[in-house]
Parts: sequence; C-alpha cells; structure tokens
Amino acid sequence: VPKRRLTLNPERLFEAVEPCRSIARRLYDSVRDLPILSPHGHTDPAWFALNEPFGDAASVFVTPDHYLLRMLYSDGVPLEDLGVPSRDGRRVETDPRAIWRRFAERYHLFRGTPSQLWLNHVFHDVFDLRERLCAETADACFDRIGEMLATDGFRPRALLDRFNIEVIATTEGALDSLSFHHAMAGTRWARRVITTFRPDDVTDASQPDFASNLRRLGEMTGEDAESWSGYLAALRKRRKDFAAMGATATDHGPRSALTADLSTAECERLFAACLQGKASAAEAALFFAQMLTEMAAMSLEDGLVMQIHPGAWRSHNAGVAAVFGPDKGGDIPSRTDFVGALKPLLDRFGNERALTIILFTLDESAYSRELAPLAGHYPCLKLGPAWWFHDSPEGMLRYRRQVTETAGFYNTAGFNDDTRAFFSIPARHDVARRIDCRFLAELVAEGRMAEDEAFETAADLACNLARRAYRLDRRDDA
Amino acid sequence: VPKRRLTLNPERLFEAVEPCRSIARRLYDSVRDLPILSPHGHTDPAWFALNEPFGDAASVFVTPDHYLLRMLYSDGVPLEDLGVPSRDGRRVETDPRAIWRRFAERYHLFRGTPSQLWLNHVFHDVFDLRERLCAETADACFDRIGEMLATDGFRPRALLDRFNIEVIATTEGALDSLSFHHAMAGTRWARRVITTFRPDDVTDASQPDFASNLRRLGEMTGEDAESWSGYLAALRKRRKDFAAMGATATDHGPRSALTADLSTAECERLFAACLQGKASAAEAALFFAQMLTEMAAMSLEDGLVMQIHPGAWRSHNAGVAAVFGPDKGGDIPSRTDFVGALKPLLDRFGNERALTIILFTLDESAYSRELAPLAGHYPCLKLGPAWWFHDSPEGMLRYRRQVTETAGFYNTAGFNDDTRAFFSIPARHDVARRIDCRFLAELVAEGRMAEDEAFETAADLACNLARRAYRLDRRDDA
Amino acid sequence: VPKRRLTLNPERLFEAVEPCRSIARRLYDSVRDLPILSPHGHTDPAWFALNEPFGDAASVFVTPDHYLLRMLYSDGVPLEDLGVPSRDGRRVETDPRAIWRRFAERYHLFRGTPSQLWLNHVFHDVFDLRERLCAETADACFDRIGEMLATDGFRPRALLDRFNIEVIATTEGALDSLSFHHAMAGTRWARRVITTFRPDDVTDASQPDFASNLRRLGEMTGEDAESWSGYLAALRKRRKDFAAMGATATDHGPRSALTADLSTAECERLFAACLQGKASAAEAALFFAQMLTEMAAMSLEDGLVMQIHPGAWRSHNAGVAAVFGPDKGGDIPSRTDFVGALKPLLDRFGNERALTIILFTLDESAYSRELAPLAGHYPCLKLGPAWWFHDSPEGMLRYRRQVTETAGFYNTAGFNDDTRAFFSIPARHDVARRIDCRFLAELVAEGRMAEDEAFETAADLACNLARRAYRLDRRDDA
Repeated sequence: VPKRRLTLNPERLFEAVEPCRSIARRLYDSVRDLPILSPHGHTDPAWFALNEPFGDAASVFVTPDHYLLRMLYSDGVPLEDLGVPSRDGRRVETDPRAIWRRFAERYHLFRGTPSQLWLNHVFHDVFDLRERLCAETADACFDRIGEMLATDGFRPRALLDRFNIEVIATTEGALDSLSFHHAMAGTRWARRVITTFRPDDVTDASQPDFASNLRRLGEMTGEDAESWSGYLAALRKRRKDFAAMGATATDHGPRSALTADLSTAECERLFAACLQGKASAAEAALFFAQMLTEMAAMSLEDGLVMQIHPGAWRSHNAGVAAVFGPDKGGDIPSRTDFVGALKPLLDRFGNERALTIILFTLDESAYSRELAPLAGHYPCLKLGPAWWFHDSPEGMLRYRRQVTETAGFYNTAGFNDDTRAFFSIPARHDVARRIDCRFLAELVAEGRMAEDEAFETAADLACNLARRAYRLDRRDDA
Repeated sequence: VPKRRLTLNPERLFEAVEPCRSIARRLYDSVRDLPILSPHGHTDPAWFALNEPFGDAASVFVTPDHYLLRMLYSDGVPLEDLGVPSRDGRRVETDPRAIWRRFAERYHLFRGTPSQLWLNHVFHDVFDLRERLCAETADACFDRIGEMLATDGFRPRALLDRFNIEVIATTEGALDSLSFHHAMAGTRWARRVITTFRPDDVTDASQPDFASNLRRLGEMTGEDAESWSGYLAALRKRRKDFAAMGATATDHGPRSALTADLSTAECERLFAACLQGKASAAEAALFFAQMLTEMAAMSLEDGLVMQIHPGAWRSHNAGVAAVFGPDKGGDIPSRTDFVGALKPLLDRFGNERALTIILFTLDESAYSRELAPLAGHYPCLKLGPAWWFHDSPEGMLRYRRQVTETAGFYNTAGFNDDTRAFFSIPARHDVARRIDCRFLAELVAEGRMAEDEAFETAADLACNLARRAYRLDRRDDA
Repeated sequence: VPKRRLTLNPERLFEAVEPCRSIARRLYDSVRDLPILSPHGHTDPAWFALNEPFGDAASVFVTPDHYLLRMLYSDGVPLEDLGVPSRDGRRVETDPRAIWRRFAERYHLFRGTPSQLWLNHVFHDVFDLRERLCAETADACFDRIGEMLATDGFRPRALLDRFNIEVIATTEGALDSLSFHHAMAGTRWARRVITTFRPDDVTDASQPDFASNLRRLGEMTGEDAESWSGYLAALRKRRKDFAAMGATATDHGPRSALTADLSTAECERLFAACLQGKASAAEAALFFAQMLTEMAAMSLEDGLVMQIHPGAWRSHNAGVAAVFGPDKGGDIPSRTDFVGALKPLLDRFGNERALTIILFTLDESAYSRELAPLAGHYPCLKLGPAWWFHDSPEGMLRYRRQVTETAGFYNTAGFNDDTRAFFSIPARHDVARRIDCRFLAELVAEGRMAEDEAFETAADLACNLARRAYRLDRRDDA
C-alpha cells in the first residue's frame, strides 16, 4: 500500500488469524446489511425536519465533535482556532478551510483511536476519498467533501435512506418545544425520527437555572411546578408529550448513580430547598437521586424505557467551560458505584418485570464486578453498550469479555451510537457489528458456542436486542 | 455440525491458532487425568455418608444452582416457577419436568457463560446426551438424565470414583454437628470427604441470631461462650472437632476484608455489645474484623489454613431474600479494599511463615493493584483462584494475566470449584486445566517460558499447589 | 530444546501467529538498534563518576533488587539470608555465593514474571550464559558472571557505550550535593548522565526528619528555609543547581495524587504547623498537595518537566521496614483517584501549553477511566509508561489497550526503565520495544493502522516521545 493511499481492509477489526477471521467474516456478512437502529443519540431534529444541506467539512466534522476537540486541544491547539464559539467575545477562527488544515496536519494524533477508524470509513465509503488525510491532502479533501455536501444526495433525509437507518432517536430536554418533531408529525419521517425525554434540566438542582426552569415547566404544562405534586404532574405531562412524538425512552445523566426512596414529606422538604436555591451540593445530589426513583415509577406507568448514564464529571476544565461552554472535550469520567447507589430504587422497583432500566458506565471496573451481576439478576435491568470513551474496538471487547460470562448476551441492549456526528453513524454501527462478530467468532473457534447459535446471536446484537430493549415496535401504537 | 447436535470440541478453550493450540494440547494431555483435589466447596456430606441416588434433572441441575436461578430470574421467570421453596407459603412449582422445560426453553440465555460450558460438558460426558438442550429436546433430556440418575453408577460414592476425586472438602458452620462426617469416620471415605470450618454464624454479629448462636456454641463445647475468653476457647474446641473430621482449613465470608487488632479490653467491650445486640453496624463489622485476626492466631496454633472470601453484598435483593431466603442469585459483588483493610492482621502475623491465608476477591481491579503485590511479598499470603462470577474462561485468563507477573504462579493456591453442583465438578476442573494450559502455551509460544517449565507448572497448577496450600497431605495425620 | 538450555527466542513477545508476528518483526527490526533514552531511573551516579568495576553476581543482581527480594521473601526466605543489611544488628549473610544459591534454587518462582525475562536476557546476551539458572547451575553462573564483571569491558562507562545509552537520568534528593555529577561536569559523560530533582524529603512533612531536612536545605542555599517564602526560594535555587547538572525534570512520589491551591496565608500557616511537627496526617498530605502545585508553578518558570508517581503505600510491612529499611519489597499499591485530586492544580495550570506534567499510576483501573481522558484533553498532561509492577509484557499491553483509544500515542511519554538494576536496562527497553511493536502490528494486521504509520509510530515510542516529553534536547543549552 503506497503511503497516503486510503484503503479500508474488508476484514478489519476481525482477528487477523484463521479460523477466527473466516468465521467472523461469515457472521458479519449475515448482519452487515441489516437496518440501523439508533435508539440513543444526539443528532439535530432540525436536520430531518428542514432537510437543508450540511455545510463544509470543518463544520460537519471538526467544530461540533468533542472527541476531536479534546485531542487537538491536548496537543495545544486553542479551541478558538477550531472555530468553537466563545462566550467572552474573543476572536474565533471563521475560515473553515483554516480549521480543516489545522485538523488535517494533526491527523496522526488520532492513530489508534476510534475517531480515526470512523473518519476513515466515512471519508472512504461516503465521500469516496482515496487519499489519507494529512497536511498535503487537506485542501483536496476539503474541496471534495464540500462539493458532495452541496448535492441533494447528501441532504439529511437522503442520508437516512442511504445509511439504512430504520429509526433514530434524538434527545431533547424537558423544556423543549419539540417543534421539529411536530413539524414531521403525520409524515413517514415521524416514525423514523423520534425524540427521547431528557429531563436533567428540571431534575438537577445544582444548575443555577433550576428555579427558572421549573417556572418554565409550569408554564408549558399548566401545572403548579413549584409544588412537589404539581412538579410530578408536570413531568408526567411532558413525558406524554414526548411519547406522542415517538419517544420510547427517557435519559438521565447524573454525576453518580445514586438513587433514593424518600417519604413524601421528605421529598416536599427537599424540593422546596432546591427550588429556593438553598440546597447543599449533597441535597441537590439527593434530589436527583430521588428523581431517578420517581422516573422509574412513571416509567412503570407509561412504559417509557429508562436510561441512566452516570459517572461523567462535566466541565472538569473550568477554564474551558467558562469561555466555550459545555461539551467541548473537558468532561472526565470518574469512579462510579452502582451496587449501593442503585439499591433504594431496586428495593422498590427491582423486581418489576414490566420496567426496563438501561445502565451505562464510564467506569469499566464496574462491568464484571457490579453491572453484569446486577443485570444478570434483576428483571428490570439491562446493560447499555460500551459508552463514550469506550465506544471503540478495545472498549467493546472489554465490555463483551467482562459482561457476557455473568449477564449473558440477553441482558444487554444492543448498540447505541450516542452521537451528534451524523455522518459517522454507519461507521460506528459497523465497528460494533464487526467487533461483536469477532467476539462470537472467537467463541465458536474455541468451542464455546456452536456456529448456528453465533449467527442467531449476531443478528440479535445487531438489531433485535435494541428493538426489544427500547420497545421500538411500540412506535406503531404511538 | 447440524443444528441441535451437542458436541464437545476436544481442543475447546485453547487458543484456536497454531502453535498455541498444539502446545496447549500437549500440556493439557499431561494433566487432564490427574486426580481432582477439591479443597473448597459446598457439596452435601449427606450424599457421601448415605450414598442415596440423586433425584431428577430439575432438582439436580436447576433448583439448587444460584447461577441458573439468577439468569432465569433476570429474564422474568419467578423463582416459584423454578421450584424454589418459599417462606411465605406461596404456591411453588412441584413438577420437575415443568421446571426443566422452563429452563430448557431459555437455554440460549446462557450462551457465552460458564454455566453453559459446564452443563454441556456434563450432558455430553456424564449423561451421554448428543442433542443440545432446547425446548424441543427438553423432555428427552429430562427422561434420559432421570434414568441414569436412578442407576447405581450415579450414586454419590460411585461418582467420586468416576470423577477421580481424590479429596473433596465440604463446608460446615461452627454449630454443625458434623454427623455425616462422623458417620464416615474410620471408613475409606473419611479421607476423601473432609469438612471445613466456617464460623461466620458465630462471628457475624450483624445476624439476628448471633446471641442464640453463641448460646448454642456454649452448649456444644461446654465453654462459657458468652464471655470473651470462653468464646475463644469454644472456637478453639470446635476447630479441633473439625480437624478431627479432616478439616485442613477454615473459611470466612465477611462483607469487606477489614481486619483489626484490638486490645483485650476493647475486645471484651465489643464482644459484650455484640452479644447484647447493641452493636452498631460499624461495631459488628469491627467485631468480624477482630475475629479474622483471632482466627489467624488460632491457625498459627493449630495449623488450619485460613480462607477469606470478602466482597459479596449478600441478599442485595431484599424482596427475593425475604421470600426465598439466601443464595438465590441475589448476591452482588462490591468494591473491596485489601491494602488498608488487611494491615492490622498483617502487622501482627504477616511475616509468619507457618501461617497460610488464602485470599479471594470478587473485585478484579484488586488483582494487579493489591492482591498480587501483597501475595508477592507477605510470606503468609496466597491467592485463591478466580472466584464465583470469575470462575470462567475469561475470568481465569484475567486472573493469570493480572496476577502472574507480580505474584508468580507459586503464590497461588491452585483451583477450587467452590460448588454444590456435584455433577459439574469435573467440568469445572477441566475448564481450569484447559485455561491454565492455554495461558502457559501462550508463554511458551511467545518465548516467555521454556516448554519443560510449562509442563512442570501445569501439573503444579492442576494439583500440587492446591495440595500444598491446603496442607492436604496432613490428612494422613488426622 | 533440551532442559536447562538457556535460549532467547528472537521473536519473543510478539504474537506467535502470522501475519502479526512478521509485521511485529519488521517494526521491531526498525527500532531495536535505536539509542536508549533513560529519562527516569535510579542508577548510582557514583558508578559513572568513578567507573569502578561492579562486584559479584549476588551484589549486582540479588541484594539490591526489590522485585527479587519481595518474591523470595514471600517464599519464606529471610531478608538477612539474602545479604540485606539490618538495622538491628542481626547477623546477615555475607557470602555472596550462598546468597546466589538461595536465589538460583528458587528461580522457578519467577516463571512468568518480567524479572525472569530481564534476567534471562542479561544472562544470555550480556554474560553469554547458555544454561538456565537453577540449583545445579548456580555455581557455574556465579563464577562466570564474576569473571566477566572483573574485566574492563564491564565497567560502568564501557557498559554505557555497549548498551547504547544516549542519556540516563539518575534521581537525587533535594539535599544531595550532586558531587558525582559535579565530578563529571565538563566531560563528555555530563551530557549522558544527568540528574533529576526529587524533593520528597523536603516536601513530605510526615517524615520524622522533615524539620531537620529544612534546616539543612537552608544551610545549602543560604535561604531562610524555615519561612514559607524562604523555603520556596531555597527550592528554586536547588532546582537551578540540578538543572546545571543536566536535570530536565523533577519527580514527586506522594501517597496520593492530591493537589491543592491554597492562599499564601493558608500556606504559611500550614508550613509552620509542618515545621513544628504539629501537622496531622491530613495536614501533612495537604502540604504535599500544595507543594505539587508550587512545583508546577516553578516548572512553568524554569522549564523542568514534572513527574508525579502517586499511589504506593510505602513500607506497608512495618516489621520489614523497621529492621531493613525502605525499598525492600514491602511497598504495596493502593487505589488512586486522579480526577478530583488533580483538579486544584489543573484549575490553575491545566491549560498551560508550556508546562509538562507526566503522570504515572499503580492503579490500572485509572488508565481508561481517568488518565487517558485527562491526558487526552489537558495540554499540560502526558502519561508516563506502565510503571513498576506493570512494567511487564501484560502490563504494557493493558496500558496500550486502555490508553490509546482515548489519549492516542502522542499524549504518552515513551518508555522509562525506572531502575537501579543497571544491567537490566537494555532488556527492559527491549521488552518495551517488542511489546509496542506487537501492539502496532496488531493494529496493522486488523486494518486499524497503515503499516507506514506504524513504522513512524514505533520510532516515536522507542525514542522520540521520550526525547520530546523530557525535553532532552535542552541538555545542549545546559
């Protein structure tokens, strides 16, 4: 392979030796063309409602991607040089070609990372590029991508078809009007683009705008959201609004996995303290903990699947967050306990077979110690896929190796791409399917599973488990 | 391989590539027929004392196996449908065939788990089944297993011979009469079926029956077990009783690895508080911590090897425990510290060469960080094998990879099956021998060990280390 | 291979299968003869200043090596039998041949450990031994090694040449006179043998000699080191002294990674408490935490790279430490938090592009959860290599697998041997180069990296990253 030539090995990510490679290839061939289910992600519903063309290579690939921002920033590139809007009025690069060049000349920093895997896949398969990105090829790539983005075949809805995306869930806050989903209502896009209820902005009392958010929640719902019972009623209404826009799930992003099960009187007292801005950090955390249990109660009523994504220390880099806002690469995972933290919720709802709670972690040490044992016992629990920093070949292999022996495959919830990087969605699902087939191939080659079982399981991991765990067939009833 | 055909790959669990596979095969062939030493487990001594036939497939394989119960329960199967006796009088399934069918139609849940590996081995090698278990084959399997269980060749003592079990340790509580071991005394079975002293019921002051247990301890020993010194004297007597029934070891299952080394006055005060039911949870934990150190002191006197199995949150699912009692799949591991926790005991006895303490963990993050460094330094410490949820191919490989480079092979204690599932014992030892040979083969293939050293080490891992660590040759003196 | 024959597999540590092995071999062939950069270690500068011959096999290999001492001690060998000087006047073995024999007859304990890999490499390649060490060959090996050590080719400076060591950093305390480095000043050795500033003895207020150390620091520098500002000034002077002797880095070994950023008034109060011996353990830890931030501030001034090596519980075995002193194998890693602990320092200096802080860990669970995310974002942070117990094939593979996908290769700092075992340095770098090439080969074989990129990266990992991270080119300015 000559230097700079961009190629994709058709057997990439499989073990490079026989018989593992051939078995993996056969398994993969049976799932590669299955539709993509994307039940958790952060694409913009405006794309699908308005169907306008995407912009240039820099604004599509670099500026909005926290994986890229963090690595480039670690190498000393100021975020303003990458076009990230500032809050302090500092001058920010506005030339997309200049941004793209800065990225291209540092593309070697991403060797061995999933970002480079995903991008090479997109460059090769979606944009037909045949040279690797580097300083020398930056301009040609930029131009080529820009030309293609301007064509109708690269508008959002055309890509949904081309990418074979059967359903994709966006994520909206509790105060979102869902206007873009409303705009699609009644069209064939409404069943494909659904929302997800993410109420952190009205359950996280540590945020400065918590009280004003609750006022707004009251206005939107016509409930007295500044009383405990009215607040719960308002949340129930909003969940219903989201379900009407296709939502089958809620999502929650607390700092820890702490849950609580307080008396009504305690809830009222705690709620009042939070509303008045008098809650300590511990009380705000306890309030979020209680709200997870309340959300589980509501899920049991309305059938929405509950997702808990704990363990990220958001905006750890205070300086970056102050100037550039959240989600700019400065979130850092931290150690997360599940066993004690989830017990109050599990004591109340753990044995409910009609409830589904999907757990995610950034602390891999919990896979075999806590999460697989919990999911391998409690009927309500399922494990979400390897998440965020661990959405990667090695991360997925660790997940399968550490989870499967205790939880099996059938207490897991299939793959999530969890991304706002729309163009990378096929690449991400492809990585997941390849790695799962590789893992299954290893089990077959080592006499730990029969090959016909592996074919069945491969299809389950690629589609069926996500469909079941996220109740995606319920969309027909919506 | 046609669908449903049950086969066992003779080279299963080895790396599926050359030269690793052939080296592993040669190593394995040298240890596969060595006798089984089972120095830690939970089989019922009544089986061996009475030698009555086992029952049906469901009561042998499903109802008593917490690995199976937990997975089936996580899939929504009520425990009463699996024949688990209830404490609240609820109706429980009594038809073993119905239980077996429920299990069989969910056998795919166990793909990729050690349970399926063990069961397939047993079905194929012990019961000569040639079809995989599933809904369609459930009845035929049930009938075939039932027929074979009714024959003399499947009585417990015949199986001890057939399984080539040289010695098997049962585990009894401090208040056990050891009647079944007494029944075997003087026969050739007494040297093969030995007991283990597990005094948790008289050292765990958090249990509601602690005080009554101590009264019973006093009655059994003729000591004043309600005074600190009498309590210690009573324990010494019971240890002697157990040693007379072949015990070479004690076993302790605290929630954490905490140890303490208090003054006699502090011990007396703490003991009194525990006895009067006035101890806080922290004081009860401190009492258990102190008792670990006392047990080490007694081990130094009487030569019994000490095992510590910390880190399980027992009966995490309070609802299941209330109705169905302990050991029904609701125990969950939790994070476990060893370095600080063991220090009081190690400060007092860590440098004793005549003492052996075997440590187990459910928190794999401690392998390379804490346990291998501790066992690779303190003369009294050895590491038990990968335990419980980690008694599995991936779990054992993680154990060897994370332990060996710091502790070597010779600070480990060989394999334990730790099971009440008698029929699975050969399968479990077979998995351990295969995985150890696989690991050694990798070292040989990669030039990290000479092949003749690997043969020697394979035999040590299969038998010699367990024999030495558990002082099994001392049984001749008993 | 006949038993006892010592051979080195030329493709050792590569994956033993094609195509991985051949790719690894090609990569390795391109880096194997690159010079050794050893920017962090504990060799004795006296060796290079005085260039006297080394002693016998026991005093070179056994008595000073804490890896060997700990394993032999765990097997029950008293440290006095290994020639370790005692503080309590107990009789200590003085016959090096007897020490060597004790080691040789237990050489099997080291199977599967990096110590045996290193030693076999040294025995074979440096001392031309062709029989494996064991009881039977002990004397012959001892004699042969002794003969060779007596020759001029085995003097320290000749070995620097033979080992192709371009630069090696020793480590000296803040109170060290640097006399051996001064002795080399102006010679061609001064650029090859540099020092490192390790001020723990004047920043760790938990040590009993802290106050007397500060007095001594004042005397050495002519500053009032018993006032806060004078103390800081004294440290600045000593840093300058070290830089003059080639230092490009400082090193810090706190128990935890805790940092602090206190006001000057708080610093003065805390400093005074420490000086008067009135500081609690928590205050002493806080003082060390503050000093890490002060050192970062000074590094920003003088350009010295900062290394933080947290997480070792030093002298965990109090009995051994009391009789034999520190560094005798009784140090045990413990759980280490980085995310919260480093925040005060990072809040102040995390975004400084001119600052380099290299982090190490003994807690591997932090690799993917904390360290890779931190280093993959903060411009000042780099990750040091797998350290101490993890400086091993499996340890390095875990490091690459858990770090690379989030931090990439270019936020890492190359290899450190971190050793006082001078003879093992080429072996240690060889292991690192082989394992890195093995990892890269796997990426290539699995289509995750192009082969030309792997060649470039292999050279970076072998030399360039260490040169850059440790600013070794600055030595020309010194």
